[in-house]
Amino acid sequence: MTRPYNFSAGPATMPEAVLQQAAAEMLDWHGSGMGVMEMSHRGKEFISIYEQAEADLRELLAVPAHYKILFMQGGGLAENAIVPLNLSRGQPMDFVLTGSWSQKSAKEAQKYGQARTAASGQASQFTTLPAPGTWQLGRDASYVHLCSNETIHGVEFQELPDLKALGCDAPLVIDFSSNVLSRPVDWNRVGLAFGGAQKNIGPAGVTLVVVREDLIGHALPICPSAFDYKLVADNGSMYNTPPTYGIYMAGLIFQWLKAQREGDKTGVAAMEARNTAKAALLYDFLDQSAFYENRVAKDCRSRMNIPFFLKDESRNDAFLDGAKARGLLQLKGHKSVGGMRASLYNALPIEGVQALVDYLREFERTQA
Amino acid sequence: MTRPYNFSAGPATMPEAVLQQAAAEMLDWHGSGMGVMEMSHRGKEFISIYEQAEADLRELLAVPAHYKILFMQGGGLAENAIVPLNLSRGQPMDFVLTGSWSQKSAKEAQKYGQARTAASGQASQFTTLPAPGTWQLGRDASYVHLCSNETIHGVEFQELPDLKALGCDAPLVIDFSSNVLSRPVDWNRVGLAFGGAQKNIGPAGVTLVVVREDLIGHALPICPSAFDYKLVADNGSMYNTPPTYGIYMAGLIFQWLKAQREGDKTGVAAMEARNTAKAALLYDFLDQSAFYENRVAKDCRSRMNIPFFLKDESRNDAFLDGAKARGLLQLKGHKSVGGMRASLYNALPIEGVQALVDYLREFERTQA
Repeated sequence: MTRPYNFSAGPATMPEAVLQQAAAEMLDWHGSGMGVMEMSHRGKEFISIYEQAEADLRELLAVPAHYKILFMQGGGLAENAIVPLNLSRGQPMDFVLTGSWSQKSAKEAQKYGQARTAASGQASQFTTLPAPGTWQLGRDASYVHLCSNETIHGVEFQELPDLKALGCDAPLVIDFSSNVLSRPVDWNRVGLAFGGAQKNIGPAGVTLVVVREDLIGHALPICPSAFDYKLVADNGSMYNTPPTYGIYMAGLIFQWLKAQREGDKTGVAAMEARNTAKAALLYDFLDQSAFYENRVAKDCRSRMNIPFFLKDESRNDAFLDGAKARGLLQLKGHKSVGGMRASLYNALPIEGVQALVDYLREFERTQA
Repeated sequence: MTRPYNFSAGPATMPEAVLQQAAAEMLDWHGSGMGVMEMSHRGKEFISIYEQAEADLRELLAVPAHYKILFMQGGGLAENAIVPLNLSRGQPMDFVLTGSWSQKSAKEAQKYGQARTAASGQASQFTTLPAPGTWQLGRDASYVHLCSNETIHGVEFQELPDLKALGCDAPLVIDFSSNVLSRPVDWNRVGLAFGGAQKNIGPAGVTLVVVREDLIGHALPICPSAFDYKLVADNGSMYNTPPTYGIYMAGLIFQWLKAQREGDKTGVAAMEARNTAKAALLYDFLDQSAFYENRVAKDCRSRMNIPFFLKDESRNDAFLDGAKARGLLQLKGHKSVGGMRASLYNALPIEGVQALVDYLREFERTQA
């Protein structure tokens, strides 16, 4: 029996093979006599799991050697405080507002300094992204923040801005919680990237931070030790007890990603090709339909999170009931925007998108 | 085949039945078509898991209705900052120093205010606990902090102090990371208790906070939103995405605890009886031996973490090799004190302690 297709925005669907391996190893990892949850984080068994996960992630995302990979706790929301605590150094910060998540980041940063709005998509109700050439970037900014994919509003940067070319020397910070590992990252343009694990990395409760070494070591005195990048980096993410099982699950995901093939592409490049095809399948159907709509400008559309609406919203409940009956789960939109949302993360196969499109077509026909 | 006995100080051994249930439910929780890791934290499935876990914990620890139960992230080490950020209100804090963990708590609190030493066991190298009658408690203290069980030094408060009887009106904060759920808590004497999950609660990456309602809502302006007890409490621990799988595992542990029986006792009372017997079995053997020693004063000895030494430390490696060969795992002591340490958490059965004592006796005989 095939599993239902799970379109949750996160925590999100995981590869079946990964879950099967985790179940098989639950009581005894590799003959150690211990499950992974039961291991001391300082023992050689867990250290080997950790080091493999870090090395695999570095390879998958092509993270340069002068960037540290940190596994932390608190999710993207905690990083909204942790980033300014570590990077602001008492200087202003410039935020590009493109939806709920970048707005939250800017609001939280105000606790720790002057959080300025460099640009905002609010006038278009966040259905477009402000062009980098229009951003107001201050010379005194400690960093520039953007959210590379807005999970709720469904807008995604198809290319990261080249701040240097815009005359800005500040490092770019990206919240890539919901598109990490779905496409390559141009690290020449990024100083720090952070993301909660619960979309493309692993289970909720792990936070990934990738940070250029020169940005480490400047935390404000009020930064909690557990969230000081220098202490976390110097202790290999084990200044406090890390979320060991979540890191193990992330490591299994990384192994799964490395094994993916799409034509002559592997790993993240393969996922990008697959994600591009998956998103096109759904957007193309929505665009030709008079029954459904997606309101995001075509050049800003997210490959990961696709919000859409029934033009007659009185049929929402019937739509969701029918979807669930066909094994198409968690399609309800975020409460702040309503409607529907299909999240097409790495672990959701194209067969799931095809099943959704088939259902969209059928539902439209039966309701006409 | 029986599993090895795992004496890790944390992350620590878990009940076999719990791990088996988790493995069985990994791909499909209760016919939902989703594993627990794949569920939206706002969906009815996970909400039901969360509410059951909270209710079971409230019952197990007899938490009064005017205390909130919060599931957070960052471990005990993060709480060393989060507690003063929420409770200090610009007033001094009084710390009772009884080992590594309370020392760390006091040091971290200095970032947020004046952290005073009310008493210290340092003169005895933390082998005794300073008597409450000798503590220097200030009238202006925002709270008094102690660690109810020091995981590294192996000292445990057999009774929590009655601060009111000592003339102190400040709330008592306890770090009960390593003895939570091993014995009842007298909530009349406690304002806030916190603990990392990775000993008696569940996997690393979940932090339990139990806090009296009147202590909530006074966070300093610099407190990160994700760690503001009021925001966490008002949002049912879902202000940010919680560590869903860890909470699920904790819930399975709570169910397991509720089903435990020891004579006419159940739940935590049953665990206390069992833990008392387990600790006595090991301490009694160590005390009669001329080959091993435990240096902690008898009235302060931890039931959970029992550090001990071979009087001839040149035999340490041989001891650990022989233990591992017999399926007695993770007995090496903490690097800061050396020697050995046996952690006898709830999930370690008395048969494991008996197997350890049998091995201690045999090793002593063969080395004599």
